[in-house]
Amino acid sequence: MPVYKFGDHPCSVSIRRSPPRREELYAGAGYPPGDKPAALLVCDTNTAPLGRDMDIPRCVLPPGEDAKNWGSVEAIIRTAQSRGLGRDGLFIGLGGGVVCDLTAFAASVYMRGAALALVPTTLLCMVDACLGGKTGFDLGGIKNLAGTFYPAGFIAIASDLLRTLPPAEWKSGTAELIKTAILSGDRDFLGQFTRPFRGEPFLPLIERALIVKGRIVESDPQETGTERALLNLGHTFGHALEAALGLGLISHGEAVAWGIARACELGKELGITPPALEEQILGILHAWDYETALPYPRRINPGVFREALGSDKKKRGGKLRFVVPCAGGARLLALDSSMEKILEKTLLKRLLP
Amino acid sequence: MPVYKFGDHPCSVSIRRSPPRREELYAGAGYPPGDKPAALLVCDTNTAPLGRDMDIPRCVLPPGEDAKNWGSVEAIIRTAQSRGLGRDGLFIGLGGGVVCDLTAFAASVYMRGAALALVPTTLLCMVDACLGGKTGFDLGGIKNLAGTFYPAGFIAIASDLLRTLPPAEWKSGTAELIKTAILSGDRDFLGQFTRPFRGEPFLPLIERALIVKGRIVESDPQETGTERALLNLGHTFGHALEAALGLGLISHGEAVAWGIARACELGKELGITPPALEEQILGILHAWDYETALPYPRRINPGVFREALGSDKKKRGGKLRFVVPCAGGARLLALDSSMEKILEKTLLKRLLP
Repeated sequence: MPVYKFGDHPCSVSIRRSPPRREELYAGAGYPPGDKPAALLVCDTNTAPLGRDMDIPRCVLPPGEDAKNWGSVEAIIRTAQSRGLGRDGLFIGLGGGVVCDLTAFAASVYMRGAALALVPTTLLCMVDACLGGKTGFDLGGIKNLAGTFYPAGFIAIASDLLRTLPPAEWKSGTAELIKTAILSGDRDFLGQFTRPFRGEPFLPLIERALIVKGRIVESDPQETGTERALLNLGHTFGHALEAALGLGLISHGEAVAWGIARACELGKELGITPPALEEQILGILHAWDYETALPYPRRINPGVFREALGSDKKKRGGKLRFVVPCAGGARLLALDSSMEKILEKTLLKRLLP
Repeated sequence: MPVYKFGDHPCSVSIRRSPPRREELYAGAGYPPGDKPAALLVCDTNTAPLGRDMDIPRCVLPPGEDAKNWGSVEAIIRTAQSRGLGRDGLFIGLGGGVVCDLTAFAASVYMRGAALALVPTTLLCMVDACLGGKTGFDLGGIKNLAGTFYPAGFIAIASDLLRTLPPAEWKSGTAELIKTAILSGDRDFLGQFTRPFRGEPFLPLIERALIVKGRIVESDPQETGTERALLNLGHTFGHALEAALGLGLISHGEAVAWGIARACELGKELGITPPALEEQILGILHAWDYETALPYPRRINPGVFREALGSDKKKRGGKLRFVVPCAGGARLLALDSSMEKILEKTLLKRLLP
């Protein structure tokens, strides 16, 4: 079982088929054998049935991104308190990114920090959100305006939980998986995605992706350096697309896939992404049926798109930051004015009429 | 200027007469000379006039413990966002414990952690709350149920701000100062309190107290060990008294002073507190006009008192923990059954009819 170390926080990850039993969660989170801590299982109405056998007091949230707010955090904290959790209590998140982010935030502030285990139930959460310690919720219409860095002590990845995953969720998670394979710089890993597949073969690839992400996060646990920014490959344009289409119209993964295609184009134009690598990546995105066309085939709001790019720029000392694929994985660029002109000419002019 | 290191977080403390100017806050918090970060000054209606000259956008909260809730945190976060603070923005708390704890919590979760400077305006906050990284707010009637460990990067202690401090606030802060002098094990430090005084002579004593507290917190920044528990000298009985009298009837400091007297009695009975030390401490508490009588001269609720002691016990694996003065400072005891009998006989029987 691999153990990561994010700052002072060890995080062990178990990857297997069947969901964990209660005792396994306790042991994974570091309680001595036989110990039965006060625990709270947090899920949403979709994932509640998956936790029925665990026999742990529950807090059931409404499903979806709309629930990612303070009201949900407060419900978790109040339920934990009424169930007798002390600072030595255990919070367990069973669900996708929203449930895991909320549970982790609540655990991070409960009596200034309680134990945390996560059982992700979506592919996207398994390959990305569950690992790395980012917690948070939305406030004033801004995603994750409030949050903490608080890695789970234990993550249990159980592929059986994916059996009932809807096709759109597979598509969303696979894009992050392909992104991580690109970041690894490992052509064999990336090559696994040449032809699409479903189900069991994902398990070893999730494992490889977590090792890649784990190494990146270990080198920059609180995003004070630039290493962690590599994980934003495909996200600069992807986020802008999500915003310009109107949130919720396409999945996060579809937006990221489209953004990866843009990163390849820009990288090739700047002489950083080898043409053969660009071809391989675009081939994979097509094989998995992602929309990569430029201009985008649906109406996008040009003002919102530029605004979304610009707000990122404002945050970063006036330079737009862009991650592009390269021979060894990916590279973070802070665009100078000549690079920005190339971005304008090769991408923005064709995208925004 | 002393610099503490709490885990990965450096914290520098400036102790002086006059309140800091804006540029000094920026420099203290680590911004390069000439840099003018987006900043937010958080105060309450009492401390707002003290910050008028700083020329920094403000968030003004209602005064008092009632404001220590999520609504205040949300107001701080929303104001920060509307004022353009990014993750590289600066939060400045100007006030007593409530304002500083709320500002520090908001900074700790704002975009997963922004810069923080504190300018305490009460003696209690100067000698205790501002240093050590504990942040938090009340929820469901429970004090600091939600919080984080997030030390300020810079603390400016300005004695001029104490000029308008009400007498009750002096009394509350002095008790924590005397407590810290006991913990130091330095008889000269403790001896400074033999006769009461006011004003300027406090400044060097605040400095000494922060060095003592700083060392304790450095050795146990997130309260995972037992070192930090020493800071609870006087608090086990003090908190129970506050609860049993009804919150707000006496100040925190008065309750702590009464609790220190109890800790001395128990320590002497157990052969840990030297009688001469007990006599010195009780003499000081009398000189400063603290109530130390057993039984307590006002009606206290025995059920609530025992419940408050017991809830602490439940949290700590079934044993009541008690800090008692000793020759070198203070010692943390986990009471075994024979010690509990002594506690019952010498203190509780006389206190609760």
